[in-house]
Amino acid sequence: MGLDHIATKPHEALADHLSGKLGDVNTLIRERMASRHAPRIPEVTAHLVEAGGKRLRPMLTLATADLCGYGGAYDVHLAATVEFIHTATLLHDDVVDESAQRRGRPTANLLWDNKSSVLVGDYLFARSFQLMVETGSLRVLDILSNAAATIAEGEVLQLSAARDLRTDEAIYLQVVRGKTAALFSAATEVGGVIAEVDEAHIKALFDYGDALGIAFQIVDDLLDYQGDAKATGKNVGDDFRERKLTLPVIKAVAAASETERAFWERTIEKGDQRDGDLEEALRLLHHHGTLEATRQDALGWSGKARDAILTLPEHPVRDMLSDLADYVVARIN
Amino acid sequence: MGLDHIATKPHEALADHLSGKLGDVNTLIRERMASRHAPRIPEVTAHLVEAGGKRLRPMLTLATADLCGYGGAYDVHLAATVEFIHTATLLHDDVVDESAQRRGRPTANLLWDNKSSVLVGDYLFARSFQLMVETGSLRVLDILSNAAATIAEGEVLQLSAARDLRTDEAIYLQVVRGKTAALFSAATEVGGVIAEVDEAHIKALFDYGDALGIAFQIVDDLLDYQGDAKATGKNVGDDFRERKLTLPVIKAVAAASETERAFWERTIEKGDQRDGDLEEALRLLHHHGTLEATRQDALGWSGKARDAILTLPEHPVRDMLSDLADYVVARIN
Repeated sequence: MGLDHIATKPHEALADHLSGKLGDVNTLIRERMASRHAPRIPEVTAHLVEAGGKRLRPMLTLATADLCGYGGAYDVHLAATVEFIHTATLLHDDVVDESAQRRGRPTANLLWDNKSSVLVGDYLFARSFQLMVETGSLRVLDILSNAAATIAEGEVLQLSAARDLRTDEAIYLQVVRGKTAALFSAATEVGGVIAEVDEAHIKALFDYGDALGIAFQIVDDLLDYQGDAKATGKNVGDDFRERKLTLPVIKAVAAASETERAFWERTIEKGDQRDGDLEEALRLLHHHGTLEATRQDALGWSGKARDAILTLPEHPVRDMLSDLADYVVARIN
Repeated sequence: MGLDHIATKPHEALADHLSGKLGDVNTLIRERMASRHAPRIPEVTAHLVEAGGKRLRPMLTLATADLCGYGGAYDVHLAATVEFIHTATLLHDDVVDESAQRRGRPTANLLWDNKSSVLVGDYLFARSFQLMVETGSLRVLDILSNAAATIAEGEVLQLSAARDLRTDEAIYLQVVRGKTAALFSAATEVGGVIAEVDEAHIKALFDYGDALGIAFQIVDDLLDYQGDAKATGKNVGDDFRERKLTLPVIKAVAAASETERAFWERTIEKGDQRDGDLEEALRLLHHHGTLEATRQDALGWSGKARDAILTLPEHPVRDMLSDLADYVVARIN
């Protein structure tokens, strides 16, 4: 929306710049997804991996490796690793949420079953692990195994934090790091690590991925309350109906009067929702200015991402990554 | 049963011999199971990890490292790794089995349990991965990542192989390697790898774990048709009722007349089971001698395990492992 005046979107510019390597990643993914013994595996994953999204996460690894002057071939392994971990997480999320649709298509667990989603997800985790072992870098293994633990921990934390009004902004941030930012920051950090750049630059790459991922998730949560269903593919208030405590609501609960708190307890904690409740929720979010405050938070994280990446030496990819940080908040700006 | 005359069972003798290291493994497991952010994690895992089974798999790693003269501390890391992978697999198996029983929408409570099982399982996989990265051995990482892929692949293969009369002994063996033997053989192989013994001995340790795991699983499948419910904790015919194609049935299908094949198609493939079907199935297994043939297969694998371990130099632990190979088939001998 807001950035339609930019002729080429930053993720498209990146995809263009990295098209050769992205082709290699796709080849490697197809190759490693195959299973000699269990033909069901590529059937289940093809649906997710081939139909595929924007390949944003693997692109972050290829981009940061390129920006750091990496000349080897392991950026392709690591990009495929990151995409496998992402796909495995989606498969396991689908089981967990019993969600009916993802990217406008039926989820794998409806097309197949829960069994396939859990076990094929496990297979992709194992395959991603094999791919990173092939790089021979213990530091990369350390980063990605820590990311995997943070992702799982964040997802478990979300189980207890959801529907619990005691969830505060610190817990929300931890959940968001698990859901989104941990894989973004690992994807950008390993690009610098395999290129063997100095520690300050590796730290900046981590900070970029971390802040970008957080901005990305906050925008998603914000659009749930004020998005255009046609543009986002979500209906306004889905999170409210699913009783998810996201940032706008957490801020509203923190500022709530006694009556307002009772409203949130009934609708979110107890799940007793009636006609007009979504409208009342939206009124409270506007009343306390929490949509605007959430928007400011997203802009703040986007700014942190941009500042971090701009500490790296000049490079066309550096500027694309900086544009990407602007772009993730363009929909709310 | 058959081996009650042996004063100390081999796994008890091993536990005794390795008690110091096993204590270290338990401490490490408790430490790494904890989560700063998600207290639900130790709640879910405690009943599995603490209540604890025989710790057979971690013991195999400690035993093989000891047998190979390893003097370091990473055997404890690897033993905990193996136990975490085993526990994660159990958690994911639970989800799978539950979803099979309830085709419709799960209750809120069941959904919560499923969520915890999937995500806490993922957390344990990630933690196991961190533990093995700490050993700094790329070869160990390679072995365990391959094992993880074989386990997941075997589980997926089982999904399509179950209830399909085309499943033959080769497919059965692949499934059994995934379900059981891949983790056994990885557990024994890494013990030799960290001790840096020669390749022939490492290969023998792998072969021992592989054959032991296969014997272990075949015995389990055989006892389902001829076990003593009091001793096994299973009712005769559970696998038949769940339409599982295990070795005795696979052999009977291979030898079936046209009428018999129709019986297996109806009961296993279509799941149309009536009173007296289990008795008829048992009659066919006896008629074709497949229970005895299965028993011979188990004894054969047990013998392979014993032969493999006896190629290693003399050592009290070597003899305990050899006794263990006899012990897994003692219940059917």
